[in-house]
Amino acid sequence: DLPGWTHEHDRLQSTWTFDGHLQALAAATGVGLLSERRNHHADLTINYNKLTVSVTTHSAGSKVSAKDTELAQAVSALLD
Amino acid sequence: DLPGWTHEHDRLQSTWTFDGHLQALAAATGVGLLSERRNHHADLTINYNKLTVSVTTHSAGSKVSAKDTELAQAVSALLD
Repeated sequence: DLPGWTHEHDRLQSTWTFDGHLQALAAATGVGLLSERRNHHADLTINYNKLTVSVTTHSAGSKVSAKDTELAQAVSALLD
Repeated sequence: DLPGWTHEHDRLQSTWTFDGHLQALAAATGVGLLSERRNHHADLTINYNKLTVSVTTHSAGSKVSAKDTELAQAVSALLD
């Protein structure tokens, strides 16, 4: 169960809203560090104070895999 | 003149490719700092080692304005 994440079009996706742009960038960097450690990278989009994190597994035919749900849980633990 | 930028759908957009994910995140943070100083924010997308920067001016009816071309020039000066 992944509160706050949607599972559509073979992706898990969630958006966070922060106080400003730099906070959103700092959050993106934190997600990037998690991704590097797992060697599984989320797509990140920053629109002013919003960060959208989107994950899929290309090696699984761009389907949502256990690697995605585990990364999503780690991202939620960091940002929620 | 903005080498490397496209002007389509009332946006200026360009993509940079870096050695890795963390370099792309660092570049995004640099663009964010430029944006904060100008109080004019680019939309940023990070896909592994690629950073896409996209700018438009909402207050100008989401058209490309002088604020956008000036931000694009500053981003190119930072990342090219």
